Amino acid sequence: MALDPERFLSDLHRLRQFGASGVGKGVVRPAYSAPDIAARDWLADRMGDAGLRPCFDAMGNLFGLANGPSLLLGSHSDSQPTGGWLDGALGVVAALEVARAAQESGGPAISVVSFQDEEGRFGVTTGSNVWSGGLSLAEADKLRDHDGVLLADARAALGHRVGADVAPSQFTGFIELHIEQGPTLDTAGEQIGIVTDIVGIRDQVITLTGQQNHAGTTPMALRRDAFQGLSAFNTRLNERLRNVVTPQTVWTIGHVSLGPNASSIVPGTVRFSMQWRDGDAERLGRMQAVILDVLHEVAQDMQLDIEMGDLLGLEPVAMDSDLRARLEAGAEAVAPGKWRRMPSGALHDATNVSRVLPVAMVFVPSINGISHAFEEDTAEDDLVAGLRVLARAAGIG
Amino acid sequence: MALDPERFLSDLHRLRQFGASGVGKGVVRPAYSAPDIAARDWLADRMGDAGLRPCFDAMGNLFGLANGPSLLLGSHSDSQPTGGWLDGALGVVAALEVARAAQESGGPAISVVSFQDEEGRFGVTTGSNVWSGGLSLAEADKLRDHDGVLLADARAALGHRVGADVAPSQFTGFIELHIEQGPTLDTAGEQIGIVTDIVGIRDQVITLTGQQNHAGTTPMALRRDAFQGLSAFNTRLNERLRNVVTPQTVWTIGHVSLGPNASSIVPGTVRFSMQWRDGDAERLGRMQAVILDVLHEVAQDMQLDIEMGDLLGLEPVAMDSDLRARLEAGAEAVAPGKWRRMPSGALHDATNVSRVLPVAMVFVPSINGISHAFEEDTAEDDLVAGLRVLARAAGIG
Repeated sequence: MALDPERFLSDLHRLRQFGASGVGKGVVRPAYSAPDIAARDWLADRMGDAGLRPCFDAMGNLFGLANGPSLLLGSHSDSQPTGGWLDGALGVVAALEVARAAQESGGPAISVVSFQDEEGRFGVTTGSNVWSGGLSLAEADKLRDHDGVLLADARAALGHRVGADVAPSQFTGFIELHIEQGPTLDTAGEQIGIVTDIVGIRDQVITLTGQQNHAGTTPMALRRDAFQGLSAFNTRLNERLRNVVTPQTVWTIGHVSLGPNASSIVPGTVRFSMQWRDGDAERLGRMQAVILDVLHEVAQDMQLDIEMGDLLGLEPVAMDSDLRARLEAGAEAVAPGKWRRMPSGALHDATNVSRVLPVAMVFVPSINGISHAFEEDTAEDDLVAGLRVLARAAGIG
Repeated sequence: MALDPERFLSDLHRLRQFGASGVGKGVVRPAYSAPDIAARDWLADRMGDAGLRPCFDAMGNLFGLANGPSLLLGSHSDSQPTGGWLDGALGVVAALEVARAAQESGGPAISVVSFQDEEGRFGVTTGSNVWSGGLSLAEADKLRDHDGVLLADARAALGHRVGADVAPSQFTGFIELHIEQGPTLDTAGEQIGIVTDIVGIRDQVITLTGQQNHAGTTPMALRRDAFQGLSAFNTRLNERLRNVVTPQTVWTIGHVSLGPNASSIVPGTVRFSMQWRDGDAERLGRMQAVILDVLHEVAQDMQLDIEMGDLLGLEPVAMDSDLRARLEAGAEAVAPGKWRRMPSGALHDATNVSRVLPVAMVFVPSINGISHAFEEDTAEDDLVAGLRVLARAAGIG
């Protein structure tokens, strides 16, 4: 039986039920949560039905293995704390459909993967980072989420599922289908984006410590207010980065946690995330230097102490020219005149996998460019176009 | 038997055990928590032992009533999320010792109170506000804490304890002993502060809403980042308040909560507390106008929506001249040359009680001016000096 778009869409909607937020098509399925594990069990069953051998590794990355050397397709099925239904799930379910069609039609050997914790509950694309040797399992186990939970404790939820490691050497390459998560294709009215390279990222947790005190009796001049320190840092950083960045560069303070976080207390501590992304590794380094300079200036001016967490990050990565050519041929056949080459501003598992395999990526549009939110969506025609381009690059249909 | 400082100190240390943080003498005993209710049950037993009649009202304010008309002494036994051991507990246990000594020595009728939620888990000095008629129980029940819990649900923890309302008319006045919670007395090496008036306070929860989006694919220019909105608001507000405030004026952003609060997501919402205090009600109003102006400027510049919570607050209050004179006579007898008159920058239950009774307050020093923190402490001699001044003002010893 050939590629079945209806079956693909119905599997995609079934997967959405795991952690369905009840708001639009929103999903709450963070890595290692009960809905995430249940979704992986469901995927493992589908892999088995498709004639693949399901295997969980120690991190909880789920593989559906074909016999012998094979092309690896997939993405991740964990979501952001408040995420959309497509994000990584699209690439996993499309990979499942392509591998299933290949088995049914006696096509080439295709394996499937759903990596764990791509969304960085514990780090940055943690599952594929460990699988590709970028981070040892022992180091990963020491990572904590924003609630202080250790990854070592979180992955205990995998229980009996964990099997042997899965050797990258059995795969000939990796292709990941993903939503763009930005406005470019949707604005241009195009269906397909072929990724040329993926930007690099840096991510660090920073803690500023001052003096917790009573908000009524501590004169403004004597305060060492950690929140005021964060606000001053953010304001100065935005000015100082102007000379360093390009219009493609982005930086974000997405997590802030005050201590003790009460309206009648001058905050004694603030822990926050500082993340920045760019296609140029040198620029990422120059931005880091500016961040450190500004931090130390503010800490000195406001008598605050600085504590820097580990610097997590990934280097910019170019896509494999051969796999990319196969995707471009597929795009020209499926969506002639309605596709483009583009960089990926978002980070993906393919960045890690490029350590051990040739990798390539294909994008479909995100309506209004919205992603990592309950409103995230893509037109059905575009989802199916992405499936067909992926299948052609894999030698199916 | 007369006033017993040893018994007073030993009760104070016993009360500290309820919610003891394990860090120094720190206490974690927020309103309606299990440790708070257990502490009130223990206090009710001590009141009974002292010949007083313990009564919980519907809010969980705990009274120990003497027979007939009486002077009311006390404070509150709930703590900040991470609080000190003295704060309101000192005034409650000192009141208990004075009332007990009065009963034992056939002295005047003294009643005792521990008000509920002085620390504002749900509002601002909520328990005494409701008792004094500043807020109806029905209105109070609609208040939510920062986790979204309704006061109506929290006070259900009182269960069978709730009895009849306690009429203010049976009391002739209210005196509250409290730690200063500021650096003035400690810096001056003095033992006693007699409060002239209590500053007014305003407290409001403000929410800014932008657009949650992916932190890698959303260009800086297209972002509607709620945290950036808060930072810009804070920076502009600090500049613009300069022309309005005095060195005694304070303002604080002590609580910040981002949504969804993840390092890879542009924050779509931020909920924060805005609190400001001053001895001049007119100035409090002028500050409010500045806050609203700056909020609307920033919201327009950054395409954010504003949602204002209820404005909670209390007016500045002058102490009763007669009760204050009795405290000053006590201070001159107990700590000659080592006391002063001073305003209270901190808010207290006395502010609410002044609606229905003449009120006065007496302070003892806070070491290094630190309060609302685990390090909060006061020298034993100063604690006992405060007890003796309170007792003399009440006509004991």
